[in-house]
Amino acid sequence: MKISLPPPQRLMASDNASGVHPDILAAINRANNFHALGYGHDEQTPQAKKLFSQLFDADVVTEFVFGGTGANVLALACMLKPAQAVVCTATAHIAVDEAGAPERFLGAKLIDIPTRDGKLRPSDIESVVHLRGNIHHAEPAVVSITQATELGTVYTPDEVRQICDFAHEHGLLVHMDGARITNAAVALGATPKVLRSFTIDAGVDVLSFGGVKAGLMFGEAVVFFNTSLATRVEYIRKQVAQLNSKMRFVSAQYVEFLQNDLLFRLATNANSMALALYEQTRHHKSLGLTTPPVVNSLFPTIHEPAASTLREWTFFWDWDLPNNQYRWMTAWDTTLEDIATFAEGVAQALEI
Amino acid sequence: MKISLPPPQRLMASDNASGVHPDILAAINRANNFHALGYGHDEQTPQAKKLFSQLFDADVVTEFVFGGTGANVLALACMLKPAQAVVCTATAHIAVDEAGAPERFLGAKLIDIPTRDGKLRPSDIESVVHLRGNIHHAEPAVVSITQATELGTVYTPDEVRQICDFAHEHGLLVHMDGARITNAAVALGATPKVLRSFTIDAGVDVLSFGGVKAGLMFGEAVVFFNTSLATRVEYIRKQVAQLNSKMRFVSAQYVEFLQNDLLFRLATNANSMALALYEQTRHHKSLGLTTPPVVNSLFPTIHEPAASTLREWTFFWDWDLPNNQYRWMTAWDTTLEDIATFAEGVAQALEI
Amino acid sequence: MKISLPPPQRLMASDNASGVHPDILAAINRANNFHALGYGHDEQTPQAKKLFSQLFDADVVTEFVFGGTGANVLALACMLKPAQAVVCTATAHIAVDEAGAPERFLGAKLIDIPTRDGKLRPSDIESVVHLRGNIHHAEPAVVSITQATELGTVYTPDEVRQICDFAHEHGLLVHMDGARITNAAVALGATPKVLRSFTIDAGVDVLSFGGVKAGLMFGEAVVFFNTSLATRVEYIRKQVAQLNSKMRFVSAQYVEFLQNDLLFRLATNANSMALALYEQTRHHKSLGLTTPPVVNSLFPTIHEPAASTLREWTFFWDWDLPNNQYRWMTAWDTTLEDIATFAEGVAQALEI
Amino acid sequence: MKISLPPPQRLMASDNASGVHPDILAAINRANNFHALGYGHDEQTPQAKKLFSQLFDADVVTEFVFGGTGANVLALACMLKPAQAVVCTATAHIAVDEAGAPERFLGAKLIDIPTRDGKLRPSDIESVVHLRGNIHHAEPAVVSITQATELGTVYTPDEVRQICDFAHEHGLLVHMDGARITNAAVALGATPKVLRSFTIDAGVDVLSFGGVKAGLMFGEAVVFFNTSLATRVEYIRKQVAQLNSKMRFVSAQYVEFLQNDLLFRLATNANSMALALYEQTRHHKSLGLTTPPVVNSLFPTIHEPAASTLREWTFFWDWDLPNNQYRWMTAWDTTLEDIATFAEGVAQALEI
Repeated sequence: MKISLPPPQRLMASDNASGVHPDILAAINRANNFHALGYGHDEQTPQAKKLFSQLFDADVVTEFVFGGTGANVLALACMLKPAQAVVCTATAHIAVDEAGAPERFLGAKLIDIPTRDGKLRPSDIESVVHLRGNIHHAEPAVVSITQATELGTVYTPDEVRQICDFAHEHGLLVHMDGARITNAAVALGATPKVLRSFTIDAGVDVLSFGGVKAGLMFGEAVVFFNTSLATRVEYIRKQVAQLNSKMRFVSAQYVEFLQNDLLFRLATNANSMALALYEQTRHHKSLGLTTPPVVNSLFPTIHEPAASTLREWTFFWDWDLPNNQYRWMTAWDTTLEDIATFAEGVAQALEI
Repeated sequence: MKISLPPPQRLMASDNASGVHPDILAAINRANNFHALGYGHDEQTPQAKKLFSQLFDADVVTEFVFGGTGANVLALACMLKPAQAVVCTATAHIAVDEAGAPERFLGAKLIDIPTRDGKLRPSDIESVVHLRGNIHHAEPAVVSITQATELGTVYTPDEVRQICDFAHEHGLLVHMDGARITNAAVALGATPKVLRSFTIDAGVDVLSFGGVKAGLMFGEAVVFFNTSLATRVEYIRKQVAQLNSKMRFVSAQYVEFLQNDLLFRLATNANSMALALYEQTRHHKSLGLTTPPVVNSLFPTIHEPAASTLREWTFFWDWDLPNNQYRWMTAWDTTLEDIATFAEGVAQALEI
Repeated sequence: MKISLPPPQRLMASDNASGVHPDILAAINRANNFHALGYGHDEQTPQAKKLFSQLFDADVVTEFVFGGTGANVLALACMLKPAQAVVCTATAHIAVDEAGAPERFLGAKLIDIPTRDGKLRPSDIESVVHLRGNIHHAEPAVVSITQATELGTVYTPDEVRQICDFAHEHGLLVHMDGARITNAAVALGATPKVLRSFTIDAGVDVLSFGGVKAGLMFGEAVVFFNTSLATRVEYIRKQVAQLNSKMRFVSAQYVEFLQNDLLFRLATNANSMALALYEQTRHHKSLGLTTPPVVNSLFPTIHEPAASTLREWTFFWDWDLPNNQYRWMTAWDTTLEDIATFAEGVAQALEI
Repeated sequence: MKISLPPPQRLMASDNASGVHPDILAAINRANNFHALGYGHDEQTPQAKKLFSQLFDADVVTEFVFGGTGANVLALACMLKPAQAVVCTATAHIAVDEAGAPERFLGAKLIDIPTRDGKLRPSDIESVVHLRGNIHHAEPAVVSITQATELGTVYTPDEVRQICDFAHEHGLLVHMDGARITNAAVALGATPKVLRSFTIDAGVDVLSFGGVKAGLMFGEAVVFFNTSLATRVEYIRKQVAQLNSKMRFVSAQYVEFLQNDLLFRLATNANSMALALYEQTRHHKSLGLTTPPVVNSLFPTIHEPAASTLREWTFFWDWDLPNNQYRWMTAWDTTLEDIATFAEGVAQALEI
């Protein structure tokens, strides 16, 4: 049996399946104006950097890269010395989903710690602090946390501050992988002040700032709050193959993204649509959707044959197959019509 | 004193200072159509790959990356075994202009050989072949040549074939850095057949195929003629931080670029404009422009104060400062008006 | 208060605190005979290699290195392709005690799995096999097990075979870190046949064969049962800084060690002394020594002030400080007199 | 035809073909005295470190490693930041004879500069200084010179000082590869004061101090004159697989070597024997031995069939085969009888 209506035009597969926001695309088109010197010696790059300093209300150092793995590896390369290690969760993107890029480029160990919710805690860091100062061990030197996490949870500003305080007390630095940072910011209040409360104000040293999942075409940013770590960032960016020659086409996107609250507006839609999907499907008890999503993902349980029926209709990712768990994810461009269509498909699949 | 007319709208600084061809930009805009699965599971990526196979008239394996350094590092990573080395010229981009990315990511030695014209010869390879088979030496295993070279010269098909034959006879593979491959193709005849004659037909194993300098916004391709080397390319691409999540925006550019001879038309303009610039400036004997450009760059000698006057008017790169040598480079979008303006500026600067 | 007798002449600190067996030392002295070509082109190295082939009753490839970390890194470097990962226990020496050497030299991820007894099981491998074939993940490609384990346990031949079978079925190779392999061999039967039963006969591909803890001065061996993996071992050994110029002084030790069952005799003493220590201290119930040691280590619980008293008297390592657990380890040269002295010291410390 | 007398008992192949000086061997035997804690927590290691500080008349930081490649890689790893490069000669051991270990472990580029005599000059460094400060280039940050050089030449103290001054003025550090440093010291005067004059006093930052070629069994030292660079040396030593568990057997050698001028006496013999060989063979004009050796090597030209006849009789290395050039090298243990025998063999071979 098959679902009797056309699938939604926008997938629940991933926010990186989304396209580019029209205003961002317009900015790209505008940037295509005669010649501009490469590598950031253009008009838009200084503008974009200035907007990041305004956003974080501080003289931060911002550099743009091509993608998220590049952002994380560049950030960590600036933070690590030889024979050091990164502490992260066992579900961290750097630990699981970057094909070993950190190990290969950094030559560093990742110490990954199991968590129940994708959130690291000071006690987790404490459990490995004894490895410092012993020449037989790679020295834990950087804590990397993901905000929002890979499991759709969000650290509160206090939680981040506690991690940063504990880390700094013990000589470790803190990196935040913010591939979905705007979703987290919206979950916590959707203002620059809120964004600052769990990043620069909480003590984070370096932030990978994600734009692509949020509505950009390509290009992420690495923001150094601890600017002493940025000494060699431009050299390392080139070395990690993340220096964009026609930089203006990335910077122009950020100039648009960081103005008029566009970054918050887009994430607000993504988060809201996940909530709408939750509201429209939670009555199917078998899905196990007992708590509303914090950001833009749901992790339903779907048994067969419903799962196959639904996935043949419209693709989404499995999450924990042995437990029949899947992931639905909304994006900046998901519409209520998409949600209604998808919810109807879910209903049909479960009835089959 | 200053030059009395406005500088050209398009710089002679570099082809990567150019923008994006309107047809390419239109393709990008068209690709922004609802959702598409990430990482190449879209509509455009298989199309683009098929067009590469058509271009080279063979079942090649093509993978897209973000930038040129990423392309070269990915290609070489697929070709090298541990404790091996790459043989290249001392002016090769991989040796000089990638900030040590090959050494860091590949963990491999580059053996760089001085040349007078940026072109490697079988005798150069012969000079290091004795390093093979000795466990104290990093083993020369890949020859990397650049086409067109960093010095604006071009290998003939025969020259490439001789390199490939010599390399293969001695157990080495051949990589071609084709950051400006379309300029080379145009210099040699501007047809797919000609392009094949100095790549796949000549015995090249893996090609870094450049699009950005030729009129694209971002995204280069790695083309495996020797497909047995591509076994792990997709894993390594992720590991070298070159996997683009919204891949369709790169692939769509290549779909456009590889159709209707656009790749040849754009490089034809770049090369022609360099020739026009040569014709309009060669009469200034002090510039030392004694032979017409093969591709899209000229390397004039400019003495002071003319050099400073000219560079204050419009930026271009110095090349060999101790010898007062500079580089002028044209692009796919340079116009005859730009050339005329620039030539007039040169004339004024030299008269001062 | 202090313990009233002199500490034992041989420590319970570690088997690497031991010296060199007199026969081994004599072999070293004999090898100092005029000149011999370096890097293994001497008399002793082919002899030692031949003895390894005799020991394993097969044409194995054996190469000598300086130390244990070098052995493991060299073995794994020969087994891994780019973007692959090693599966091991969370207590594995490669994961914990090599300061990140594997990550830095191999550029590879270690996937470390918690175990209760230091022994990996097929089900552990099964839990990560799904990571294969997904370009976002470093591909599990080598299983590394330690025999005897870091926790003093030993895999049976059947257990090793099950791991090898499961690994090979799923396309993974198996490395054995045999830093204390002779202790394991003695625990299982103390014959070449037994040694083969849990190595080459069980399907292990590459073995790090430890000699230093067993009575040598320096120098470990890497033994390739799967000789197809040894193609580049000599180049990589040099690259990993493990090529000994005056090789004869390592090889001569192995020539002695592998003859007349010396390797088994020395480990027999180490294991027996641990058993003796167990017998002489198990009656102190607070130590929690409820099961006899399998190889040459005991993991007693010692509360304060006894622990400090005992450690001031003679050094041994803490193991799990929050749980007051320590490690006592015997060596090839430990005597019954040492054991009696140490046991008496323990008794005094516990009475204080 | 063959040479009619037995070959010398000590080869002219390499100083690493020599054995171990009896006093060194005796020190090793003495060190085999019951147990000692591993990794340098023994009696001999602090003694040896203290002797290094006395030798250099300063509080230097000294750490021991297994071999020469390990020493160089460890030293450089302590001196380099990411995206930096090492400047050395094209004949440098690190560039040619370490199988790419520097590139793989350091992830750094070596910029190797052709020289006529194996000696780098300030003008060579000057030729690459312009690469600093440009994010496209790996930044030259360390100058590595070899003393005595791979070509048997020696830097004067003034020459080293000029290199160090120039390097430091431009922000580069200086590493000295002293695999044959005692031969150089003897060539320049054979006292600690002379040794200091071209190392610490000349401004060298870090020294790889060689013992193995000079009469030790195994184990080299890395000496930090610029102790601020030693912050992470112990961690990195472990990570580069150079931490010796039974350290006392290396340290004991250095305790002996650094006392009673043994280091100078042994190198004096090696150098003298090379001079004796020169005196006894220079009358064969075809050998082209026109200048006496500075240290312990000669580079004669030998035509066929003499070369083959001589090499079948006793092995020595070829150096520049296309030019029929070979290398003869003496050692700490070469005797006048060996020289006389070898010279007679040379005479016979040339007469054939």
